[in-house]
Amino acid sequence: MQNNLLFAGIEAGGTGFSLAIASGQPSNIIEKTHINTTTPEETRENVLNWLRGKEFNAIGLASFGPVDLDKDSATYGYITTTPKPKWGNTDILGWFKEFDVPKGFDTDVNGAAISETFHGLHKRGPITSCAYITVGTGVGVGVVVNETPIHGLVHPEGGHTFARILPNDKSEGTCPFHKNCIEGLVSTGAISKRLNLTNDQLKNVGDEDPVWTTIGHYLAQLCANITLLISPQVIVLGGGVFNRKILYDIVRKETINILNGYIKSKYLTIEYIDQYIVQSPFDNNAGLVGSLELARRAILNQSN
Amino acid sequence: MQNNLLFAGIEAGGTGFSLAIASGQPSNIIEKTHINTTTPEETRENVLNWLRGKEFNAIGLASFGPVDLDKDSATYGYITTTPKPKWGNTDILGWFKEFDVPKGFDTDVNGAAISETFHGLHKRGPITSCAYITVGTGVGVGVVVNETPIHGLVHPEGGHTFARILPNDKSEGTCPFHKNCIEGLVSTGAISKRLNLTNDQLKNVGDEDPVWTTIGHYLAQLCANITLLISPQVIVLGGGVFNRKILYDIVRKETINILNGYIKSKYLTIEYIDQYIVQSPFDNNAGLVGSLELARRAILNQSN
Repeated sequence: MQNNLLFAGIEAGGTGFSLAIASGQPSNIIEKTHINTTTPEETRENVLNWLRGKEFNAIGLASFGPVDLDKDSATYGYITTTPKPKWGNTDILGWFKEFDVPKGFDTDVNGAAISETFHGLHKRGPITSCAYITVGTGVGVGVVVNETPIHGLVHPEGGHTFARILPNDKSEGTCPFHKNCIEGLVSTGAISKRLNLTNDQLKNVGDEDPVWTTIGHYLAQLCANITLLISPQVIVLGGGVFNRKILYDIVRKETINILNGYIKSKYLTIEYIDQYIVQSPFDNNAGLVGSLELARRAILNQSN
Repeated sequence: MQNNLLFAGIEAGGTGFSLAIASGQPSNIIEKTHINTTTPEETRENVLNWLRGKEFNAIGLASFGPVDLDKDSATYGYITTTPKPKWGNTDILGWFKEFDVPKGFDTDVNGAAISETFHGLHKRGPITSCAYITVGTGVGVGVVVNETPIHGLVHPEGGHTFARILPNDKSEGTCPFHKNCIEGLVSTGAISKRLNLTNDQLKNVGDEDPVWTTIGHYLAQLCANITLLISPQVIVLGGGVFNRKILYDIVRKETINILNGYIKSKYLTIEYIDQYIVQSPFDNNAGLVGSLELARRAILNQSN
């Protein structure tokens, strides 16, 4: 592949869209912008106006979902059943028809998992599999196995998996579908509700508050279930809730406790767990770099 | 690939080894035998004696585990930390050194998942991903994604994942590592303990006993977590506990209830769920056909 190719990446999120142009490598971003998510029509116009002046050889779109990833489906490229008002049944990939370049499309979290796998510069060395967990207003899980994002019946929605509830946890959970699934236990809204605070007040809660032990425990159960079911080489944790940096070590220690020595790997020991459960080197840019990687792959797939 | 190739398959189980020769296709078994699992030395001699008289072009070995699948490791091909007496640290792939043919190696359940993916004749049509769950003295989960079994940090051990405990379930669980993980809640030993019976007496328990609703519920949580994390195209259920045939429909209905409409797919509706959560067409032969498929792939990989 030529090294002077230009990639356009769009990370479509429920609160904002991040757009970037990268040169040569997806991680080499030369220009970027942020657009608030309002109505589909207005957002579309703002996104297209930014792109129209640019040069690029491919587009990658990593979108919030659920989305339709089935290329044989009549609604391929659509956001399907999101609870976000007005956004259900939106042909988001179709927005970019006017650009006659190869296009890649996946979920936002699969995009992030792709960028972590291929551009993550992990201390343990190159990897071929990775789970990316983002914890904020929702909990998303993207998964790459054998260098490929998981698509199957649909795509992973691992934020809604179930865990053992702690004996003293009286929280009912906030998920409208599953009450106390992981998202219903640890999302921003769930933490606020536990403390009877607004989301904005959460930043005033001290690191010593026992709520972080509870949140860390459930996220460790998610990491344990992912380790047991998918056995990725690395788990990346990010999203707004992880601005609370003490959570990383709580999750690491609890994951070891929960697995209790059953899975034998040096990466599941206290000495090496920080190479298994890691912070994203891209901070909150992982999804954007992922969308640029989707653009790069769209060209690769075309020339195969 | 030639159609007249002969494959030798070994499914190495904790209570017995199944061996077979297949011709042309892994599912076309022309000769098979069963050998009880005793000491590693005695079992090895019995296995090798059966194979020594046969003709075959490749060997596939699908073994109980945990096993070491890392080709760069000094203990590649070993059974590693099994609690089974005398079998820890057994170089089981090394048993077959005297046969100068390509060899394939994986876990027993990954082998079964491979055979279900490629030879399962699923009503929904050809598939590229599959989870295989076996429930008996233990609970094993094999996973194929994008036509390839999952290897990563190690390999899936999904029988030990965690679930929400039912409010009235007083069982403490029988897993020595995790107490009430899925295996600790639903294995043969866990069911016997719930009813205060021996394993042999379980067959006398009626289909109407409420214990089957409880067992089905937890297995449905496992299916829901797998659907949410891996999104396979098919989940195959097998193993001794599923000789209790009513469990299939209990698991199907409970999986729909637990997911509660969050994942949109026709295969998660009451009309189509029997094409998503299925019984193995190989009955308890899935692992053996899987080992034969591993042999077939060992030849493919060599000629690539």
